[in-house]
Amino acid sequence: MSLIVQKYGGTSVATPERINAVADRIAATRRDDHDLVVVVSAMGHTTDELLELARGVSPDPPAREIDMLLTAGERITMALTAMALHARGIGAISLTGSQAGILTDASHGAARITEIKADRVRQGLENGKVVIVAGFQGVDPSSREITTLGRGGSDATAMALAAALGADFCEMYTDVDGVFTADPRIVSAARLLPEISFDEMLELSASGAAVLMTRSVEFGRRFSIPIHVRSSFHDRPGTWVKETTMEQAIISGIAHDNSESKVTVRGVPDRPGVAAALFEPLAERSVNVDMIVQNVGTDGSTDISFTVPRDSARHAAEVAEKVAVELGAVAVDLDENVAKVSLVGAGMKSHPGVAAGVFRALAESGINIEMISTSTIRISCVVRGDQAEAAVRALHAAFLPPMVVEEEGV
Amino acid sequence: MSLIVQKYGGTSVATPERINAVADRIAATRRDDHDLVVVVSAMGHTTDELLELARGVSPDPPAREIDMLLTAGERITMALTAMALHARGIGAISLTGSQAGILTDASHGAARITEIKADRVRQGLENGKVVIVAGFQGVDPSSREITTLGRGGSDATAMALAAALGADFCEMYTDVDGVFTADPRIVSAARLLPEISFDEMLELSASGAAVLMTRSVEFGRRFSIPIHVRSSFHDRPGTWVKETTMEQAIISGIAHDNSESKVTVRGVPDRPGVAAALFEPLAERSVNVDMIVQNVGTDGSTDISFTVPRDSARHAAEVAEKVAVELGAVAVDLDENVAKVSLVGAGMKSHPGVAAGVFRALAESGINIEMISTSTIRISCVVRGDQAEAAVRALHAAFLPPMVVEEEGV
Repeated sequence: MSLIVQKYGGTSVATPERINAVADRIAATRRDDHDLVVVVSAMGHTTDELLELARGVSPDPPAREIDMLLTAGERITMALTAMALHARGIGAISLTGSQAGILTDASHGAARITEIKADRVRQGLENGKVVIVAGFQGVDPSSREITTLGRGGSDATAMALAAALGADFCEMYTDVDGVFTADPRIVSAARLLPEISFDEMLELSASGAAVLMTRSVEFGRRFSIPIHVRSSFHDRPGTWVKETTMEQAIISGIAHDNSESKVTVRGVPDRPGVAAALFEPLAERSVNVDMIVQNVGTDGSTDISFTVPRDSARHAAEVAEKVAVELGAVAVDLDENVAKVSLVGAGMKSHPGVAAGVFRALAESGINIEMISTSTIRISCVVRGDQAEAAVRALHAAFLPPMVVEEEGV
Repeated sequence: MSLIVQKYGGTSVATPERINAVADRIAATRRDDHDLVVVVSAMGHTTDELLELARGVSPDPPAREIDMLLTAGERITMALTAMALHARGIGAISLTGSQAGILTDASHGAARITEIKADRVRQGLENGKVVIVAGFQGVDPSSREITTLGRGGSDATAMALAAALGADFCEMYTDVDGVFTADPRIVSAARLLPEISFDEMLELSASGAAVLMTRSVEFGRRFSIPIHVRSSFHDRPGTWVKETTMEQAIISGIAHDNSESKVTVRGVPDRPGVAAALFEPLAERSVNVDMIVQNVGTDGSTDISFTVPRDSARHAAEVAEKVAVELGAVAVDLDENVAKVSLVGAGMKSHPGVAAGVFRALAESGINIEMISTSTIRISCVVRGDQAEAAVRALHAAFLPPMVVEEEGV
């Protein structure tokens, strides 16, 4: 008998009909005699609708009250899911994040899980019940205030519970079939990956693959809990994210990210301490810098480029302007029309020619590379925003050509 | 400086616009430097919408999960109300029933408040904040389960908090102007009562006046907390319900109730223990019996009639059938087309002719009286259901004639 944690995202529980389908699926898992903890998100667009109500009463609502408001969303789903299970003769009990012992820090809207005190969850399991837990929410034990976990919060709830309970694995039910070699909306030849390693998934997630947040993959890696990313709309298996995979492909997938902007500080004097003078003030202002590239200059000055999330780009550029004046730099450019394309694969460690192959493939498609950044299993290039899709297609064709199916006979 | 508890019902907070209007009203109260606790209901039809979702997943959802579901409703209102106050520069904090220390018994869907541990409410007030509390909900401290208080639950929350905090008074904001001498939709000459005693209000509420539940009036009387029932749609004062009124009118008002049915057990042998044999089994099955009338018979047998809420009438009749067979009674009749009309007034204690006046007024309008029940300050008559409105009009004309406004001069 296994202990399984399942998580159902918003589209999977968008309507009573969808919740009934989820209950059927849970019932089927239950018939195999598995212990089951189910984490649910708010139904469909509930969170957006609640935020719309908030905008109707305040231009700038306090984060504490936003958390109070939004946590109503998962509360509704969890109760309905428990009811749907009861209607199928399956004992179930719903618990809020607070009741499930999801303890967090005090950061309303972006709380981090600090501890899981899953006594009531364990008690529910011991009583033979399916335990339904509201995702995305927790409680700060020092102030007893309700918090929300921010983006990917329900996945984090599921993984944290899986870790605390020693679950055999965690199933993330979503509206896509799993992890693909590239976004299937862009590359028609993109293939579903049956499995991928935590390290590769981390790089893909960090590079823009939205199917799993890095946060949950990190949980999985740290506590060795396999994650099965799959669709709640059919029964076919999805992608297993786990420690090691049977055979390491050279390249697992290609991710792209259109949500960043590029800031370039031109004509910076090329002397020690310049980078620190620029990036310390940005860090102090909580600007999340992703890629950084500095070229060695020839005339005693250099250009420093970095990428930041688009919604903090103007703020970052203003900070950079200020520093630039102090440093005696020439100018600061803000470029919002960029995209990052990343090739990820654990096998590239032992294949030194991959980077060269990336540059060649992009060049042959007439795509200019503006910034490059690499890790041992990833190569990322910043290109023009409107060339991102062409870049993804070029790299997919070069590194992940369609499998040739041999014809029978003849 | 006073401590005031305000309660806003569902129609008063039905939309973000209405919540903004409520926030303006709270802000005005706050400017007079009063400490303020505000109890809110779920927005408009939210509770019905949530129950509709529940019906979509289960024909018979467990009461615990219904409570989990419904408590999302007030949670949304309380957060939005706190936000609207913040937007007006007024410090506010929202608390769920559980956070506000509303402790109850374990009866999901109809929990009774057992204790108020209002530490967090007091702390909020000490921090100079308006404390917004979710009405209708509490927590059973022994099981830590969330409960709801059933009908009139938000009013009960407000009155219990007012009692626990020693509030100066409690304002119940609703969509009607206050307590009237009769339902203004039936009697055009019905007048708004500026004040009424707890005892009279209790009798009116118990007799069908829906503006205040008996439960809250009982709280007010027990803890001597005046209640101001008023409209949230304008600023005019409503009705003060309090200990004693300046001058006791003979008659305060007329209530009617169309929600009951009459059960008659005919030909019951007239011997001791017969009533107990009938009503004990009904009490054991939680049937809420209102009026009971037994006539002394002439031939050694008698008829016993009683009224019960219509939704438990068939059940009550079945129980009565069973007992009737055991007792050797002739038959059991169920009559669903009845109504109760009640005249209430503290002054009738010292005016012995009131009952006779009631019977005369109804007789003159051709209305037959089927059952009579009296208290020291109330006379109730059961009549045909389709004659209820005529009965209310006849009694209003007889006991509460329109005030004559004397013309100036001439």
